[in-house]
Amino acid sequence: MTDQIDMNFLLTSLEDELHSAIETHSENMIGEYYSMMAYHLGWEGEGSGPDARGKRIRPLLVLLSCSAAGGDWQSALPAAASVELVHNFSLIHDDIQDNSPLRRGRETVWKRWGIAQAINAGDAMLTIAHLALLELEKSCTPEQTLQAAHTLQQACLELTKGQHLDLAFEAQEQLSIEAYWLMVGGKTASLIGACTELGAISAGCTDERRTAFREFGFFLGLAFQAQDDILGIWGDAALTGKSSDSDLLAGKKSLPVIFGMHQEGPFNERWSYGSIQPGETEALAKQLQKEGAREYTQEAASQMTAKALSALERARPEGEAAHALAKLADRLLRRDV
Amino acid sequence: MTDQIDMNFLLTSLEDELHSAIETHSENMIGEYYSMMAYHLGWEGEGSGPDARGKRIRPLLVLLSCSAAGGDWQSALPAAASVELVHNFSLIHDDIQDNSPLRRGRETVWKRWGIAQAINAGDAMLTIAHLALLELEKSCTPEQTLQAAHTLQQACLELTKGQHLDLAFEAQEQLSIEAYWLMVGGKTASLIGACTELGAISAGCTDERRTAFREFGFFLGLAFQAQDDILGIWGDAALTGKSSDSDLLAGKKSLPVIFGMHQEGPFNERWSYGSIQPGETEALAKQLQKEGAREYTQEAASQMTAKALSALERARPEGEAAHALAKLADRLLRRDV
Repeated sequence: MTDQIDMNFLLTSLEDELHSAIETHSENMIGEYYSMMAYHLGWEGEGSGPDARGKRIRPLLVLLSCSAAGGDWQSALPAAASVELVHNFSLIHDDIQDNSPLRRGRETVWKRWGIAQAINAGDAMLTIAHLALLELEKSCTPEQTLQAAHTLQQACLELTKGQHLDLAFEAQEQLSIEAYWLMVGGKTASLIGACTELGAISAGCTDERRTAFREFGFFLGLAFQAQDDILGIWGDAALTGKSSDSDLLAGKKSLPVIFGMHQEGPFNERWSYGSIQPGETEALAKQLQKEGAREYTQEAASQMTAKALSALERARPEGEAAHALAKLADRLLRRDV
Repeated sequence: MTDQIDMNFLLTSLEDELHSAIETHSENMIGEYYSMMAYHLGWEGEGSGPDARGKRIRPLLVLLSCSAAGGDWQSALPAAASVELVHNFSLIHDDIQDNSPLRRGRETVWKRWGIAQAINAGDAMLTIAHLALLELEKSCTPEQTLQAAHTLQQACLELTKGQHLDLAFEAQEQLSIEAYWLMVGGKTASLIGACTELGAISAGCTDERRTAFREFGFFLGLAFQAQDDILGIWGDAALTGKSSDSDLLAGKKSLPVIFGMHQEGPFNERWSYGSIQPGETEALAKQLQKEGAREYTQEAASQMTAKALSALERARPEGEAAHALAKLADRLLRRDV
């Protein structure tokens, strides 16, 4: 079957594109400039290898969207590399901002090289992301490339807005559901919306389809986050009460928690009192569920998924990539990734 | 005289362009997202006003280069705003990296809002810089806009390389003169080279002239840094021994210091021994001068200035802007800014 999508070939081609971007732009550079980025991307240093790399979901969304929009996925490789680099730039800075010592079981960049060099490594990766995107010039028209640059920059802007809110919310006692969606829209969904839109731009499809592809990704991102919030409290790992797995222990103001705070019942009473302890997670998760937070969040995730699928229908995805795209969305929502 | 360059009009137009970029891209945003950037740019908060804004030398170089390359400086306003925002992004991150509590007599962004939010404010300003640049589309062709995007991204890349080296050099005992120029080329000169090149791109001149404009800015940046290194040790403020004015007290590995280290004479003996104290600056500066460091650095600055002026000649600057450009370069080198 010649039109079958070979996901491994996509992943290998993407990894080549990422290597090429980082290596080309680090050329002739002395010091550990290259190594810091290569370490973070899982290519070298202790614990490097596939497990350290993440699943590259975002760039796969770019490539499959391009193909499903009637384009050749290879022409979207620069855009695919760019979104993965933007994602990883944000992780490097996030880890400093959250004071996280570990990511995917390995020391974070700031923990290993210090905060000053880690800020700079993130800045470098963001810049290389944009330079990687400009390689679209080779397969697209100048107009398409400019539109793609605009889309990626706009996603980066939303990312910084979402991050600003996330950091600001840590200090706030009360939080509205609206503020939650604004934060998640910026921090998670906008980049995923940019992925599917960049695929469509690389394929050169109409503005209408391009918008539909973006909305598919955007709502997929919102649905993913709501789903992730459920796992962060009621997932197997969260219930056992390891601080890195439970949003209750981390004090994270996720959607179920915000819902629970607004009920002003026993959950809110305990939550307002102070940090949750490991022994409490299971009972507190049960209480939160009793107050309706799990059902509410599940319903929100379903609504966002429905909006994503409706947008995907409007995007009229074509060929084998249409199936692969739907399957990838499904994998993302089940967290089977 | 209609062809006289009205510098105040340029500065006012630039400030409008900067306001428009930051305000448009902060629209509808809750929290202090806008305020952090407006504070850093000297528009609001304690101590705001002209003195808090810097001299906007880089964007003036863009506008004057555009005009001197035969273009209308107004068409280069988006590029002018973008370089000023890139410069200010790098200052926000620099202040965190150097642990600086003050800039232009005011609290730095990280000191006021914390490191996490300050990293994010820098990321936001960098992104808005690139979005501001894309406004070139309105006055330039798609090809020119793409070339400008490439030039600015490349300058950002060099900036992160220079910063990586600068941070790495702090921990190194010995340093070569070559390493110094590599660092300064990345950290200071590349962005100034991008300024003059962006002006030429906005004017739509030939590749050859564009390259000459870039080289003019690049060597001007190197000359400026060498000159700045002299003032950092032998300037009036430095000699009086206030830590914020003396590179000797700050332990900064500037060109005269690196030259002095390589002499392995009395200066190096004292320098290697440990931190310099306020009472020592004047005598140590005298010793360093006796060992030839001031003359050496002055000679280097003159050589770089000559290279800059030779490139400017090849750039064949036109009209009143040619004089204004030469005058601005002169102001920059005398630090009369």
